[in-house]
Amino acid sequence: MNNRRTFLKQTGLLAASTAFAPNPLWSSTFQQKEKLGIALVGLGYYSTDLLAPALQLTKHCELRGIVTGSPEKIPVWKEKYGIADKNIYDYKNFDSIANNFDIDVVYVVLPPSMHAEYVVRAAKAGKHVWCEKPMAPSVADCEKMIKACSDNKVKLAIGYRCQHDPNIQAYMKLAKDNTFGKVRMVTSAAGYVDNRTDHWKQKKAMGGGVMGDMGVYAIQGARLATGEEPISVLAQTFTTRPEIYHEVEETAMFQLEFPSGARAACHTSFGINMNYLKINYEKGWAQMEPQSAYLGNKGIMSNGTEINFPIENQQAKQMDDDALALLNNTELMVPGEEGLRDIRVVEAVYKSAASNSLVKL
Amino acid sequence: MNNRRTFLKQTGLLAASTAFAPNPLWSSTFQQKEKLGIALVGLGYYSTDLLAPALQLTKHCELRGIVTGSPEKIPVWKEKYGIADKNIYDYKNFDSIANNFDIDVVYVVLPPSMHAEYVVRAAKAGKHVWCEKPMAPSVADCEKMIKACSDNKVKLAIGYRCQHDPNIQAYMKLAKDNTFGKVRMVTSAAGYVDNRTDHWKQKKAMGGGVMGDMGVYAIQGARLATGEEPISVLAQTFTTRPEIYHEVEETAMFQLEFPSGARAACHTSFGINMNYLKINYEKGWAQMEPQSAYLGNKGIMSNGTEINFPIENQQAKQMDDDALALLNNTELMVPGEEGLRDIRVVEAVYKSAASNSLVKL
Repeated sequence: MNNRRTFLKQTGLLAASTAFAPNPLWSSTFQQKEKLGIALVGLGYYSTDLLAPALQLTKHCELRGIVTGSPEKIPVWKEKYGIADKNIYDYKNFDSIANNFDIDVVYVVLPPSMHAEYVVRAAKAGKHVWCEKPMAPSVADCEKMIKACSDNKVKLAIGYRCQHDPNIQAYMKLAKDNTFGKVRMVTSAAGYVDNRTDHWKQKKAMGGGVMGDMGVYAIQGARLATGEEPISVLAQTFTTRPEIYHEVEETAMFQLEFPSGARAACHTSFGINMNYLKINYEKGWAQMEPQSAYLGNKGIMSNGTEINFPIENQQAKQMDDDALALLNNTELMVPGEEGLRDIRVVEAVYKSAASNSLVKL
Repeated sequence: MNNRRTFLKQTGLLAASTAFAPNPLWSSTFQQKEKLGIALVGLGYYSTDLLAPALQLTKHCELRGIVTGSPEKIPVWKEKYGIADKNIYDYKNFDSIANNFDIDVVYVVLPPSMHAEYVVRAAKAGKHVWCEKPMAPSVADCEKMIKACSDNKVKLAIGYRCQHDPNIQAYMKLAKDNTFGKVRMVTSAAGYVDNRTDHWKQKKAMGGGVMGDMGVYAIQGARLATGEEPISVLAQTFTTRPEIYHEVEETAMFQLEFPSGARAACHTSFGINMNYLKINYEKGWAQMEPQSAYLGNKGIMSNGTEINFPIENQQAKQMDDDALALLNNTELMVPGEEGLRDIRVVEAVYKSAASNSLVKL
């Protein structure tokens, strides 16, 4: 074993460094694991109510670590999930996770403004990184995160649970297979009524605003339905409750143009309950409602075919898919580059709305 | 009988002049008619295939006259509908229809660029006027038409068959009755693939363009769903077949803002088959598909209520409703002012698309 490998092994970077080029050594240390050790960074609602329970349902993941700034949460998590003391970190000592062989993947579940910092720190610690959506508030942040993971030879997945849902995969396939000919028009809506009055989703500095939270689902609907990347954006953002939404937009409406000539009308809101996708092709249509729920995404096509596949738990499926991709050294379904694609559109929506003009991408 | 009334009776203007203020004389000459005599101006597809057959199904209308610039069509119409020679006009002698007591209503079914001229001439001839949609290519034209009818004391109805369809009336009622609370978001789509290559719908000078033809249905969907008039428009128009659509737009997408805060995303196209309406309210939703077909408009609401009322023939219902409103001197369901409201939005869509900016109304 050469010096570099010895160093990598000591620092826990070995699996990562070789994940891009399988070799016997890598296989023997990482690929043969049955389960990857996951550490959740940030123990808010999504970690507590969704990810931690989902991790109990996974085959290839094990919740082994937590990173939190709230010491009062530690005993609860220890008792509930048997987290070992040595796998519990705060935001100061987090970087020492590099030396913890229990942890294979760091899952960043913090407000979006903190994603870049913690993804970069996790990458530098030699851990594979999973990062919640939206990937980050800016394209610059996303690029920084992708580069840090690449530089440190770790992989980065974005927590888009929907792309792991067979119901979403079903409509994605229609464009790929040309089932109804070319896509002509998409309507993609994703919103809910958020009546909280003091939440990070309402704070600009924390990466709030509906575009990152629900808007990316509206974008994903259009992007996944067409299988294309938008080339222009015309948008407006607005607020009907300025007492709550004065830093960030409550609602956004935007029109996307795709290279094939397909177009999309997207709407997203913290003030409107709506969640659907309508795709008009040359020779038919497909629709989903809901299109981005945790469970129950379903649809129908113009030929009568129903889209209604069973899925026990989206987050468990997502994490098992991502764990298997790491274990087998295959491509991640939703890598950092995919998260970046949406944030490019998010930035263009803001730019178009602010400048009151069409933004070319 | 005073001199003015004698004159009116002689010139056929009597019914018209008194339609706004019922009096015994008016009742005895007009209101007691069982059927109104209709003259169709323009014998293209819509008159030939839709209106003339529909007139045979009406209770209160009778197809008695035609106005055409195509002499070869006359024998066909005479034979099929028994049109009397004295009720057949060309575009030159049309104004002498003023002296024809057989004709109570002139229905203008010409390309939109000709609507204003023929509505004004019909009004001056003292006939009530029905005018096909779109009302006219410009707000100025619409206002001229409304004024001419008002000045000549005749009534003007626009041929929006959909507002006479109980399925359309069903969703209009939801906003009025506040069934699901306030309207928050509407998506309204109306388009079809028109593969003709040399049609007036593709000619600017004839009032072509998708906005007037199908766009008004998309607008109507949003206006009728909210029961409100838009206060701002953000739009883009585009063409994927410039070889056909170089004078006028093939497709338009536009966002509408309403005084209540409701918004709408509308799309219309001569290159996309789509026809649906989705309404998201505070506490539920309703959807129609199709929303503006000749027959078969139907829908469903979030509470499970279906919208699927029988209607034998939209055009027959429209013409009987309008005939009854004239006979009973009650309000027309779709007066000229309603046609004008849509053309105001059409103009704003063009202005927004051309200036690439939000247009306030």
